Amino acid sequence: MKKINTAPLSGMQELLPTDQATFNRLKHTIAKTYHAHGFLPIETPVIDRTDILLAKAGGETEKQIYKVVKTAETADDSDQALRFDHTVPLARYIVEHESDLTFPFKVSQIGRNFRGERAQKGRFREFYQCDVDIVGRGQLALAYDAETILTSLSALNAFHLNTPVLARVSNRKLLSGLIEALDLTAHSADIFSIIDHSEKVTPEKTHSDLSEIGLSSENVVKITTFMDIHGDRATVIRDLENLAIDHPTFQQGTTELGQVLGLLPADQIIADMKIVRGLDYYTGTVFEFYLPEYKEVGSIGGGGRYDNLTSHFTDQAFPSVGSSIGLSRLYYILKTHNLLEDSTQPMIDICLIPISSAEFTTALSLADQLRRQQKTVDVVLFDKKLGDKLSYAAKIAAQGIVIGANETSTGSYKIKNFATGEEQPLEI
Amino acid sequence: MKKINTAPLSGMQELLPTDQATFNRLKHTIAKTYHAHGFLPIETPVIDRTDILLAKAGGETEKQIYKVVKTAETADDSDQALRFDHTVPLARYIVEHESDLTFPFKVSQIGRNFRGERAQKGRFREFYQCDVDIVGRGQLALAYDAETILTSLSALNAFHLNTPVLARVSNRKLLSGLIEALDLTAHSADIFSIIDHSEKVTPEKTHSDLSEIGLSSENVVKITTFMDIHGDRATVIRDLENLAIDHPTFQQGTTELGQVLGLLPADQIIADMKIVRGLDYYTGTVFEFYLPEYKEVGSIGGGGRYDNLTSHFTDQAFPSVGSSIGLSRLYYILKTHNLLEDSTQPMIDICLIPISSAEFTTALSLADQLRRQQKTVDVVLFDKKLGDKLSYAAKIAAQGIVIGANETSTGSYKIKNFATGEEQPLEI
Repeated sequence: MKKINTAPLSGMQELLPTDQATFNRLKHTIAKTYHAHGFLPIETPVIDRTDILLAKAGGETEKQIYKVVKTAETADDSDQALRFDHTVPLARYIVEHESDLTFPFKVSQIGRNFRGERAQKGRFREFYQCDVDIVGRGQLALAYDAETILTSLSALNAFHLNTPVLARVSNRKLLSGLIEALDLTAHSADIFSIIDHSEKVTPEKTHSDLSEIGLSSENVVKITTFMDIHGDRATVIRDLENLAIDHPTFQQGTTELGQVLGLLPADQIIADMKIVRGLDYYTGTVFEFYLPEYKEVGSIGGGGRYDNLTSHFTDQAFPSVGSSIGLSRLYYILKTHNLLEDSTQPMIDICLIPISSAEFTTALSLADQLRRQQKTVDVVLFDKKLGDKLSYAAKIAAQGIVIGANETSTGSYKIKNFATGEEQPLEI
Repeated sequence: MKKINTAPLSGMQELLPTDQATFNRLKHTIAKTYHAHGFLPIETPVIDRTDILLAKAGGETEKQIYKVVKTAETADDSDQALRFDHTVPLARYIVEHESDLTFPFKVSQIGRNFRGERAQKGRFREFYQCDVDIVGRGQLALAYDAETILTSLSALNAFHLNTPVLARVSNRKLLSGLIEALDLTAHSADIFSIIDHSEKVTPEKTHSDLSEIGLSSENVVKITTFMDIHGDRATVIRDLENLAIDHPTFQQGTTELGQVLGLLPADQIIADMKIVRGLDYYTGTVFEFYLPEYKEVGSIGGGGRYDNLTSHFTDQAFPSVGSSIGLSRLYYILKTHNLLEDSTQPMIDICLIPISSAEFTTALSLADQLRRQQKTVDVVLFDKKLGDKLSYAAKIAAQGIVIGANETSTGSYKIKNFATGEEQPLEI
């Protein structure tokens, strides 16, 4: 009988071994793809200085950050908290280790981040994020924006899902420029936020939200016309030019968007002015990844260009672009919608079944031989009836080898496939 | 100029990319070896209920645990803290998921744990542990104790260090039985602790410590004679029998130690009565791993049999045995003593160098082709002189391919080895 509540805390992902193995396979696929694209791995500590983590954070983040209580022996250090993303610790890392790095620095980070937000289905308080970032020193060419999108798409494509993956791309200079051109900079934060939330509400609501913050109906139409622009590169660039916004930031945004789109595969990309990204540190290209056949799940990752993130830590400029896949959430979605090939294959290749403890040494040494051939091998070391041993073996392994006195003395074994019942001599 | 302290907090391990890659290679080797031995992976949350984590903890642990401050939106949950090992969350996991698991449950856990202890060189407050555990339901055969030791040794051997690895093995029933036979149970905790610390002090100090807690000089001799027993299986079993301790627990300990040693490779094992393990939850076999040529660094891992860990959570018995490699510490030791082959090879196979942005599309598409052949490939996307591009490429990659108008039109490339300067036609 249970004496205590043994469930994990709400908002935590805790998987059974077969699911964990699938999760790990996805994580490994992402890591491999990131490396294949020339990104080098780093890990920053989970616990960091609160003043670093909150240097540029807004209200939401500050409310969700997990602070850590100092222990007697850590009391000399600064105030501490758990990182809520990989980007802020990366900014610290860059400034700290600058002289040991080669720029542009292509870096990947795969690990858990922590946000103490309201627990919801498919959203986690502890969650894996898989990030790539490219950090320039002084400057960073625009083509690297395309490279982060390409890298994330490669990783998502490597899952071989039987549903398409799509990136929606925009550039924050467009909306910023438009706002400046319309002389609405006082409403800038509100307008970004209304567009960011526009897909969760009706177009009428977005319309009335924009009116409510004090926009003239003429300006409301201009903003909604802009945010409805989407499509392939040619369509979107034409529609943006047709708006005839005479502002250098807007024109710069159009040029940048056109150049980035020009380096991306048209069949997996849509330009979409509704993409603005909530976080306020983006300064140019922004993008999000979707499963268009599962619109209701929302974005499964995203990122963008951020030119000023290190500005709280140093006077030197490190313009950067990054992309993140939210793996805990993505795994949950793929699992819930049956988009993962569930391996029906047992997780162990071969289980060795010594009939008695007299065969343990033979079994352990045969196991070693098989492992040298890259097989995963378990050995039954408990003392029960042969039937019980076989039933354990058939549950956890694809094949089994029974080892008795005869096998031990002759050194020849038969291997049985538990699925088919077929038995054949083992060749080593 | 830096505006803020950007160093990681003390006690945190933060590596440069090449070191991180080496660290990840060790971690991957361990994960692969654990799986080869039939262990299935799980991950428990980093944040867990304080009442679970401290259910069986003693004073040290309670002082070192990092408590987490609840946020506005997590305030409904129990008190929370960061896990300080994998074993306690595993006990919770077993009780919670029991009906979905196959027993004996062979499970591996690789991840970060957290202890807010005094920062010391080579000891970390955030540290990777790589654990295997075997959990029985109701009972667990003794041979599994040997299997955990074998698995950890396999993982350590797979590093191919050019220094030997050794496991020192004992059984807590020996010392427990001896203490009972000598009627010293009132001093049990002290005796365990003095033996556990005996290798950090002189034999005279151990002697006087034992006297000070109130042992007669006859008993001091009996305890020190016992703790000095070490050697191969035959020697140790003979020496233990020569002590002629007439107590069933001691005799059970002798039998168990003999059986476990019988399944282990003699050349990597020494039986040693000084091994008792600090934590009080061990009930039988105990062991620690060492690099005998680097005695001063102490143990690099260890574990043992713990039969009662779930007793605070459930009435059901789940006897278990586990082994842990402290990877952050081990990496630090191997690095400090130059025991790792530092890869002088750059981390990226090939860097593509488009002469101008006109060749970006060609370069990105060639990169994809090469990645399909399992190459790691970077593409220079910045706009500088060719010399600057080549110098970047030579820093990060082993080989380079320059792509100009000619290569783009002919589709034939030359690949240059930066180490040798040799150039040859690329075969795809």
